[in-house]
Amino acid sequence: MEINLNELAARVGARLRGDGDVVVSSVAQLTQAGAGTLSFLGDSKYRSHLAETKASAVILTEADADQCPVPILISGNPYLTFAEAARILHPQPPVVGGVHPSAVVDPSADIDPTAWIGPLTVIEAGVRVGARVFVGPSCILGAGVEIGDDSRLVARVTLCAGTLVGQRAMLQPGSVIGRDGFGFARDGERWVRIPQIGRAVLGDDVEIGANSCVDRGAIADTLVGNGVKLDNHIQIGHNVEIGDNTAMAANTGISGSTRIGRNCTIAGAVGMAGHLEIGDDVHFTGMAMVTRSFTEPGSYSSGIPAMPSGAWRRNVARFRQLDDLARRLKQLEVSLETMKDTQGQEES
Amino acid sequence: MEINLNELAARVGARLRGDGDVVVSSVAQLTQAGAGTLSFLGDSKYRSHLAETKASAVILTEADADQCPVPILISGNPYLTFAEAARILHPQPPVVGGVHPSAVVDPSADIDPTAWIGPLTVIEAGVRVGARVFVGPSCILGAGVEIGDDSRLVARVTLCAGTLVGQRAMLQPGSVIGRDGFGFARDGERWVRIPQIGRAVLGDDVEIGANSCVDRGAIADTLVGNGVKLDNHIQIGHNVEIGDNTAMAANTGISGSTRIGRNCTIAGAVGMAGHLEIGDDVHFTGMAMVTRSFTEPGSYSSGIPAMPSGAWRRNVARFRQLDDLARRLKQLEVSLETMKDTQGQEES
Amino acid sequence: MEINLNELAARVGARLRGDGDVVVSSVAQLTQAGAGTLSFLGDSKYRSHLAETKASAVILTEADADQCPVPILISGNPYLTFAEAARILHPQPPVVGGVHPSAVVDPSADIDPTAWIGPLTVIEAGVRVGARVFVGPSCILGAGVEIGDDSRLVARVTLCAGTLVGQRAMLQPGSVIGRDGFGFARDGERWVRIPQIGRAVLGDDVEIGANSCVDRGAIADTLVGNGVKLDNHIQIGHNVEIGDNTAMAANTGISGSTRIGRNCTIAGAVGMAGHLEIGDDVHFTGMAMVTRSFTEPGSYSSGIPAMPSGAWRRNVARFRQLDDLARRLKQLEVSLETMKDTQGQEES
Repeated sequence: MEINLNELAARVGARLRGDGDVVVSSVAQLTQAGAGTLSFLGDSKYRSHLAETKASAVILTEADADQCPVPILISGNPYLTFAEAARILHPQPPVVGGVHPSAVVDPSADIDPTAWIGPLTVIEAGVRVGARVFVGPSCILGAGVEIGDDSRLVARVTLCAGTLVGQRAMLQPGSVIGRDGFGFARDGERWVRIPQIGRAVLGDDVEIGANSCVDRGAIADTLVGNGVKLDNHIQIGHNVEIGDNTAMAANTGISGSTRIGRNCTIAGAVGMAGHLEIGDDVHFTGMAMVTRSFTEPGSYSSGIPAMPSGAWRRNVARFRQLDDLARRLKQLEVSLETMKDTQGQEES
Repeated sequence: MEINLNELAARVGARLRGDGDVVVSSVAQLTQAGAGTLSFLGDSKYRSHLAETKASAVILTEADADQCPVPILISGNPYLTFAEAARILHPQPPVVGGVHPSAVVDPSADIDPTAWIGPLTVIEAGVRVGARVFVGPSCILGAGVEIGDDSRLVARVTLCAGTLVGQRAMLQPGSVIGRDGFGFARDGERWVRIPQIGRAVLGDDVEIGANSCVDRGAIADTLVGNGVKLDNHIQIGHNVEIGDNTAMAANTGISGSTRIGRNCTIAGAVGMAGHLEIGDDVHFTGMAMVTRSFTEPGSYSSGIPAMPSGAWRRNVARFRQLDDLARRLKQLEVSLETMKDTQGQEES
Repeated sequence: MEINLNELAARVGARLRGDGDVVVSSVAQLTQAGAGTLSFLGDSKYRSHLAETKASAVILTEADADQCPVPILISGNPYLTFAEAARILHPQPPVVGGVHPSAVVDPSADIDPTAWIGPLTVIEAGVRVGARVFVGPSCILGAGVEIGDDSRLVARVTLCAGTLVGQRAMLQPGSVIGRDGFGFARDGERWVRIPQIGRAVLGDDVEIGANSCVDRGAIADTLVGNGVKLDNHIQIGHNVEIGDNTAMAANTGISGSTRIGRNCTIAGAVGMAGHLEIGDDVHFTGMAMVTRSFTEPGSYSSGIPAMPSGAWRRNVARFRQLDDLARRLKQLEVSLETMKDTQGQEES
């Protein structure tokens, strides 16, 4: 979509310096931008790229404003302003209501006429789909599923029976919401499956990445708060609760009944044990192994970063001796103290 | 489903104390239970919740029986008895035989008339589907697949050509069984794919979680034993063998040709190298890194639990020096020994 | 398929010793081989199996040739020769052109008449499918997708709008290519989604495993080089670039904008942070945690291998004290040095 800088600046709340009649129609990286594109400078250390940019306009901070040969939009947070401008330039196409003839829709389903149901999608009994919802190709909406207004199921999303999805959700291909939780009781060597009668309940503005899973609860529900963003390949166990606006990167797994607070950021491939309490504003770095509760805000980490394999093997061998090494160190300290005393006595 | 306590106690083998005519129709947590619900006390430390429960009946041990104001079912293993009662109260709906008209079924397929084939499912040549099997929407059963009686493919399950599934299996959405194993020979810089002609063979009572994969064998078959339970996002490489009743939690990966014994429990996000031998009754804790065989029963662990990021950075820096630290420690011990000798000689 | 040894030897470039009229029709393991099968000896340590083999022919090196009672194909690289022979004996069935009547194909799609479009596959506007491409059941090809000649989408592959796939690709079930990257800007507590307008671009001879994901780029494209092989459950973040012939094992995740060179091998469950540079011929062992760039060829590792849980707990407790232990060690060294000096002075 085309827009001139006067209008764009007004809509994103930025201050324009330069020709407001210049028109932009897409976003681009600073070094690869061409005519008609809008770019941004998020980090002053790339300021030298400004001189050579071919972008028609750049979003940047006041501090970087003098360096730029093209029209600028000044913002206190160029990255956020860029995000908003990109949403204006590259809007989601509007949803056209209707049901593709190849979809298999139970007559008891209540589908808003402004919603789109894509080809080869299955909609079971009692499903409710809100206004302007986009259900892409090959989705499955199990019995009793409800989806709030303006949500988007990109394609091939599986919502198991009873799952609730709020408004403005974005569910990516391969995601599976509301699978039976992994609950078994042991009977001798045999595992007896425990019926999982809770639901998976997603709030508003939730994003679930490709091939991610949110299991339904065992008895009570699994709860994903408003504004939660989950990347790909994420596993959310039964009865987990995730607070508003918490984000998780790919390959992370949260075991059953763990409760995570609001505004947490959880990096990729983190693993959390079950039945933990994680407070608000807690941050875990990549591959962190979370085996206890962390209720205080802060950043937490674990793991051994990669090193040349030879050095790693030697250090790992020592890790196995670590308790022994610590005991020997303690022993040395005692011995030395004794010797010092002895030496001191001799000297005195 | 509604049942009175007399009948329920008889069916789960529990001893009833209280009014046997009381009817229950669903399960609930002790603290959230209402009229008509059955709850349980699995751990005596929550015994205080008994006094306030609104449940119509509670399953508990003899030792906790005196504390409870409502009818009780006494069991040596309340959790198992609860599982069995929950299965009675929340039964799987019976399978109604038939083939949805939107399914695409090869005429050579042999489908038991008591089995259900859901909408938009694809069934290729030579497939055999047993009695009372439930094949949910959008499944794919490749050529020659066989599924034993009473198995359940919840939805969107992919069984690649030749895959065998036993009786009473439960396969969750997004699972992919029998994909070609990851086998390549190197030809200079180029990788040459090796045809994978083995199969994936699942025993009876197997559960495969959402988006989990079991690869077919390279030459021989990949074998998943009876009663094996796999959670979501699990990867089973080609020619892996898993013994009966072994269970794995989400995000775990087993590399090719590793053999795992019976009754093992493997927690979440464990990684196993290939060609290992894991004995019976071996247990790995979460995120364990398994690089060698473990043939003795027992519990094995690895990984560094999360700690505040600052402390982690300091300790990780020391880990890189660990071999050096150990050598310096040894050197100190030698020096001290020498000094002691010297001191001793001086003293003598 | 049946072939005699004269012809097979010629086609794979091996030297035949024995009866060239012997016919083989499948491959088998040395110890389980029967009449009509071809086997191989990849490692001399299994040479003793040769004497008892029931295979009709065996591929092996010159050095192992004398031990074998059946006809042999001599090769400098038996594993590679076996791969090539297996491809001859177990060929992919030829693709028969056509479109299954249950597929939903946009009239603007350009599908080569020699390509196959399987049942219940969805093909959106402007898609281009090359010669002899096999698109299995239940795939989704979003608007503008292009697939090069001789590629194979096994089943249930999702190619999001604009994705490009080269020639001879092999895409396994559940894979999702071109999902929107995970890009958000923070606005107070709220996350604002940044439109992802780059594409996912796969080269020739690429393999993508089951349930693996390659995200589309934010602005520029995500690039997967020629001959790249990805196993199952792999996550490739937006704007990652992977050099030719690099291979990754299952459960590995690469964060956004990381660039990986050619001919790398990345074992299972490796995690890489974003914006890193990994050079050519770099190898990471399983579960490596990659937090910095590695530009030099070589092998790199991290992680603590599993050990008995009791020993692990003791060692982990010491890890938390590691920085302190190192300081105490340094202190001891200083003290000892001082004492030596003192002792030396006393002695002198």
